[in-house]
Amino acid sequence: MSVSIPPPKCLKKPLAVPHRLMLGPGPSNVPARILQAGANPVIGHMHEETFEIMSDIKSGIQYMFQTRNIMTLAVSGTGHTAMECAIFNAVEAGESVLTAVNGIWGERAAEMAQRIGARVNTIVSPPGGFFTNAEIEQALSKYSPVVFFLAHGESSTGVLHPLDGIGELCHKYDCLFLVDSVASIGGVPLYMDEQGIDILYTGSQKVLNAPPGTAPISFSERACQKIFHRKTKPISFFLDLNWLANYWGCDGKPSRIYHHTGPVNAFYSLRESLAILAEESLENSWKRHEKVAEYFQAGLESMGLKLFVKERKARLPTVTTIVAPHGYNWKEITNYIMKTHNIEISGGLGPSIGLVLRVGLMGCNSSKTNVDKVLAALKDALKHCHKSKV
Amino acid sequence: MSVSIPPPKCLKKPLAVPHRLMLGPGPSNVPARILQAGANPVIGHMHEETFEIMSDIKSGIQYMFQTRNIMTLAVSGTGHTAMECAIFNAVEAGESVLTAVNGIWGERAAEMAQRIGARVNTIVSPPGGFFTNAEIEQALSKYSPVVFFLAHGESSTGVLHPLDGIGELCHKYDCLFLVDSVASIGGVPLYMDEQGIDILYTGSQKVLNAPPGTAPISFSERACQKIFHRKTKPISFFLDLNWLANYWGCDGKPSRIYHHTGPVNAFYSLRESLAILAEESLENSWKRHEKVAEYFQAGLESMGLKLFVKERKARLPTVTTIVAPHGYNWKEITNYIMKTHNIEISGGLGPSIGLVLRVGLMGCNSSKTNVDKVLAALKDALKHCHKSKV
Repeated sequence: MSVSIPPPKCLKKPLAVPHRLMLGPGPSNVPARILQAGANPVIGHMHEETFEIMSDIKSGIQYMFQTRNIMTLAVSGTGHTAMECAIFNAVEAGESVLTAVNGIWGERAAEMAQRIGARVNTIVSPPGGFFTNAEIEQALSKYSPVVFFLAHGESSTGVLHPLDGIGELCHKYDCLFLVDSVASIGGVPLYMDEQGIDILYTGSQKVLNAPPGTAPISFSERACQKIFHRKTKPISFFLDLNWLANYWGCDGKPSRIYHHTGPVNAFYSLRESLAILAEESLENSWKRHEKVAEYFQAGLESMGLKLFVKERKARLPTVTTIVAPHGYNWKEITNYIMKTHNIEISGGLGPSIGLVLRVGLMGCNSSKTNVDKVLAALKDALKHCHKSKV
Repeated sequence: MSVSIPPPKCLKKPLAVPHRLMLGPGPSNVPARILQAGANPVIGHMHEETFEIMSDIKSGIQYMFQTRNIMTLAVSGTGHTAMECAIFNAVEAGESVLTAVNGIWGERAAEMAQRIGARVNTIVSPPGGFFTNAEIEQALSKYSPVVFFLAHGESSTGVLHPLDGIGELCHKYDCLFLVDSVASIGGVPLYMDEQGIDILYTGSQKVLNAPPGTAPISFSERACQKIFHRKTKPISFFLDLNWLANYWGCDGKPSRIYHHTGPVNAFYSLRESLAILAEESLENSWKRHEKVAEYFQAGLESMGLKLFVKERKARLPTVTTIVAPHGYNWKEITNYIMKTHNIEISGGLGPSIGLVLRVGLMGCNSSKTNVDKVLAALKDALKHCHKSKV
């Protein structure tokens, strides 16, 4: 046998990556400090120094999530991996799961639970809407789920879902409260313990401004009770919380057994991003995101654009959804802004496709300067893009 | 509600990562060129430039694997993720799977297949051993599996498994041939197409010298036929090949739908590592790994140490296993070498724990200079470590 497939010519061209202002719903821009942290030399996934970095990450996540949960760690993967980690561990085949669907995330959670053989029920709201506690309680009572899924920040529709009281309702019906905070955490108040959230996860590439590839997750004592008394093993070895808990030093055992090779460089970046959040403080970050979002919303309305989420309180400050301007092709607008202004903004996703434009202002990207830039770009796009007579 | 968990003090300490010579079984050292590629600015996971980088990666993997498979991509995760990707897609609950167990990887593949409800049978060899084609054929005939798993490089035992003829045998019994090449690819000849391998995967952190966190994988036409005619959906949405194929532009469809946020910075590093392999050429890399391994083996034997794998041809040039020196505590040796020489070497893993020391010489780490360093460190350790009278 001999080498019959030659080295590809395309790899002779040096890697070239443009600088771009990332104001879509994520990934957001990554500060040089975090990029450089990730460029530190590789050490072993089981070295003492790595365990210390993981321990720092754990503390940083506990702060960001406002939780004392020992079972707090980062999954070696993206937000979707964390989502599957939550569902694969908390749900067994045949169990009842309830998901709140007011955008793409509820749909995806439902699909994940279905794939592992759960009986899935949904409560559904049109894009832009959300649920009252009474509606949630009714569904909890009707379907007796073991897990209730809710997206705190529905990045596809720009909705910030209220959380207060839902944890108590879930616990009243002996159900775990699972919350997706990928698009919200760090930019909006959230108190995992006080709000009775049993499983909470996020991604690294939104408010945290780290590269995509790691996903913080935390499990309450109540969640651990269910998970560690399962009748069957979780479907995934890679995401089995028994193994992850040991790798992250959360199980109190004196030694750690090799599970998988953690992405150590991504851990460096994640640690740095958590350090930056701790430096600014959660309260300051929340305030900044709120003020910048209000400034942005005012600017949009003064341009005559309409916000997709009617209730001011239900607007996600990290991802703003704008009603797709009448008579325009939304794709032409986002393409124009990318080409002419080197700024990413995006269209809808899943159920909001065609309905909205989405602008992310997350972490270091949440600034008035960026708002001014994106407003100017939008004005320019509306002037130059083709407007059909509808 | 208010913030009750304060910012952790540990995050005030700047990140400090030591430089270390990584001669364990992986991760191996990452050259500055690859680290800096990964520190390029983040762009979108759906941007044209990212798709081009992904296309380059695809070509690089096709070269490294020696395959023309269109269904070639990198999973957003570690080697274990790729392992689950292969099994989750290729196997349905109730189907028969055969795994060759001559170390930890066969055990883990068996466990993964069991978790999704496959009927799993194994052929087992003591650590350090491997299987003849006759033994494999006997088991194929007996168990009629839909997938046969084999580790090309058994990094826990240092065995390089022969591959010739096994693909044909699998196909004779209408079975897919699934090969783990995490520890071998790029350092040892392997011809995916010519050797009839249906699914092949590896990790980024071994011979490729990229940080851990991405995992190349490729599926033959035969594998795709089975996967795309499944009766049930794969258990994981995140690893569903239908979705991954679309994200990686392998399904011929004109547009790509958002699946998950790829770890773009890890893709930059992976592309760079594949470019370096293409520059050196597979043949040169194979030769270098072979020569360096022979030089190392000769050095070990001249020190009076014994190689764990008796047959010279079955020795993995990337990971060398040394019989744990009689009378010593292996852990004392690896700790001493780490502390005194700043070099990582490792003990056994899974079935080889206590039996061996393992030294990895992978990618840029495969050099005579490094061999001299590790031989000197071993000599020093044997002199200074406690030798019990057994």
